[in-house]
Amino acid sequence: MKKYQLMAPGPTPVPSEVLLAMAQPIIHHRTPQYEALFVDVRAGLKRLFQTSADVLPLACSGTGAMEAAFVNTLSAGDTVVVVRAGKFGDRWLEMATAYGLDVIDVAAPFGHSVPAERLAETLKANPHAKAVLTQHSESSTGVLHDVRAYAAVTRGHDAILIVDAVSSLGIADLPMDAWGIDVVLSGSQKGLMLPPGLGFVAMNDKAWSKTRTSTLPKYYFNLTEERKFVTRNDVRFTPAVSIVIGLREAIRMIEAEGLANVFKRHDRLARATRAGVEALGLELFAKATPTPALTAVVAPEGVDSEKILAAYSQSHNITIAGGQGEMKGKIFRLGHMGYAAEFDVIAALSALELVLADLGQPVDFGGSIRAAQKIFAEKS
Amino acid sequence: MKKYQLMAPGPTPVPSEVLLAMAQPIIHHRTPQYEALFVDVRAGLKRLFQTSADVLPLACSGTGAMEAAFVNTLSAGDTVVVVRAGKFGDRWLEMATAYGLDVIDVAAPFGHSVPAERLAETLKANPHAKAVLTQHSESSTGVLHDVRAYAAVTRGHDAILIVDAVSSLGIADLPMDAWGIDVVLSGSQKGLMLPPGLGFVAMNDKAWSKTRTSTLPKYYFNLTEERKFVTRNDVRFTPAVSIVIGLREAIRMIEAEGLANVFKRHDRLARATRAGVEALGLELFAKATPTPALTAVVAPEGVDSEKILAAYSQSHNITIAGGQGEMKGKIFRLGHMGYAAEFDVIAALSALELVLADLGQPVDFGGSIRAAQKIFAEKS
Repeated sequence: MKKYQLMAPGPTPVPSEVLLAMAQPIIHHRTPQYEALFVDVRAGLKRLFQTSADVLPLACSGTGAMEAAFVNTLSAGDTVVVVRAGKFGDRWLEMATAYGLDVIDVAAPFGHSVPAERLAETLKANPHAKAVLTQHSESSTGVLHDVRAYAAVTRGHDAILIVDAVSSLGIADLPMDAWGIDVVLSGSQKGLMLPPGLGFVAMNDKAWSKTRTSTLPKYYFNLTEERKFVTRNDVRFTPAVSIVIGLREAIRMIEAEGLANVFKRHDRLARATRAGVEALGLELFAKATPTPALTAVVAPEGVDSEKILAAYSQSHNITIAGGQGEMKGKIFRLGHMGYAAEFDVIAALSALELVLADLGQPVDFGGSIRAAQKIFAEKS
Repeated sequence: MKKYQLMAPGPTPVPSEVLLAMAQPIIHHRTPQYEALFVDVRAGLKRLFQTSADVLPLACSGTGAMEAAFVNTLSAGDTVVVVRAGKFGDRWLEMATAYGLDVIDVAAPFGHSVPAERLAETLKANPHAKAVLTQHSESSTGVLHDVRAYAAVTRGHDAILIVDAVSSLGIADLPMDAWGIDVVLSGSQKGLMLPPGLGFVAMNDKAWSKTRTSTLPKYYFNLTEERKFVTRNDVRFTPAVSIVIGLREAIRMIEAEGLANVFKRHDRLARATRAGVEALGLELFAKATPTPALTAVVAPEGVDSEKILAAYSQSHNITIAGGQGEMKGKIFRLGHMGYAAEFDVIAALSALELVLADLGQPVDFGGSIRAAQKIFAEKS
């Protein structure tokens, strides 16, 4: 028996507690039972997003939540600044193009991030820009963008900052109100330890004020209409009931650990993974500002990274991820977010050593484990 | 103990077999495992939709599937014919308005349907119309529209027929190809016996040809892009993995029964419910063309139908539904679709007798049961 282990950067494993909660009988969404569930979930989401604003759950994937944030605040012909350095950043570009907006493209090479100074200069030169679109954690390259600094830079402008936090919510600290981020959106299948299918959008007053002038057409994702229902603990359309039931349990688990501890755990797992990978002589792809959600690693010289994924899967029944687009074959990505703990990292590194040896690479067996354990042995 | 029974017109109960399938570990969506799952599900969906066209699954509710069908085939300024007689018909009207289309409104009073002749006259007078938008089963009133006749009428025109089959797929026969329906869309939470969160759209060649001229902006719901992935058994964005896993099991259960038998079962349950309700002296709301998905009943003179729902819930732990919008307080709706069988109808009717008696109405105890049983005793 090789136990199945899902160690990709999302979707992430779902704890049995959540799976069993979700296996309870479906309840109807216009009943006192659902209302009571939704009251709990609404309050819990505000705590997770660290905001006093309402967090609106939507039946969609993370990209749907991106689109909801986008179409409710913008109009065709608007100028937006896309701050990007990876595939999910590209997605903002594609969306802006699809909806007929003018894009100022502020890109960094994959594996790097865009310094806040560049955004500051861009906004100064383009005061008519309506929004800055970016990611917090860029899953495709393993980079964490400094959205705190982006928010500080954006604050003095008419533009709003829209942050895709799909792979950072419940993983890296992102105090929406304290940092002054105007829109935070996320999805269910990463830090929240749920199946994919639920998106979330939270907007502050500055962002809500943009909805009054936004002319992009919308119906399913009309957040102004959605909010009317949510604020009375109701839903506009049939919600993804079972995932909402699971969400209450996931919030309970996260809060039992403590949100600050959850962030610390992810930081430790990420540091241990990076230390382990480097101990094997491999190069990290995101050097300066790695995300705690995943670790992107450059494949050894002459090894196609797709072969590494294949060996993880075939020899060890572990799913990791490769590079996307131009990075295909060049990097592999180890997820350590959501329902992930120390010995998951140990397993991922142990498998990596075996995989590399199988592929004919020189390996100091146990070397990555030792490096990771030193991180885990730290008292802090 | 009062067993919880969900007897509303959607979401419907999810069989334990499906719940347990969904409680299996989440798999990643870019793996051979998911591809094998998706191959099964793709083929099964074609059989359920009775089409050779690809059925595209989307992470959204039924309304999202309506929007996907809409924004991929139409352009702002287009004229569309909305054939409506209930709240879900109104939704097409709202969507067309939100997207800046011209609407020719062909409405029937709630509880009735629009005769195909009216649609024929409308299309003759408006040959520039681009689409006819309607429901197959109108859940808000309990009416089944004659979409077979609508398709026959639409066939000779440039317009495509877009049918919302959210509460008829796997419930009432709807052979998409044989009837020549251009677009059929549905959702997971009714006849398919799944949790809400998965929508579906199938389009024939005539409908796909419209996507080439459609200028409504779209990104998340871009079906042209989505199809490129689906035809190679891949997905564009993270899918609602757990519901897709459940879908394979639901398809297996439906096909074990046989699709034709599933339709017969729903027809029997509906006829039995109607017979039972009428035996109690109550009036059916949809007389001429009732849907087999649910039965809408006019509340007795002087009784607010909301009191009937409340009594079902409080005294018997059964969720049914009331009227929506202008029908609130006037009708109640008993669902008998999806994972519903003979003794569920008996329970619903038995509870109805007890509820009516509690509300001071004269009741011939057992009268509705007798009427229903006569239907069930029929050998056909």
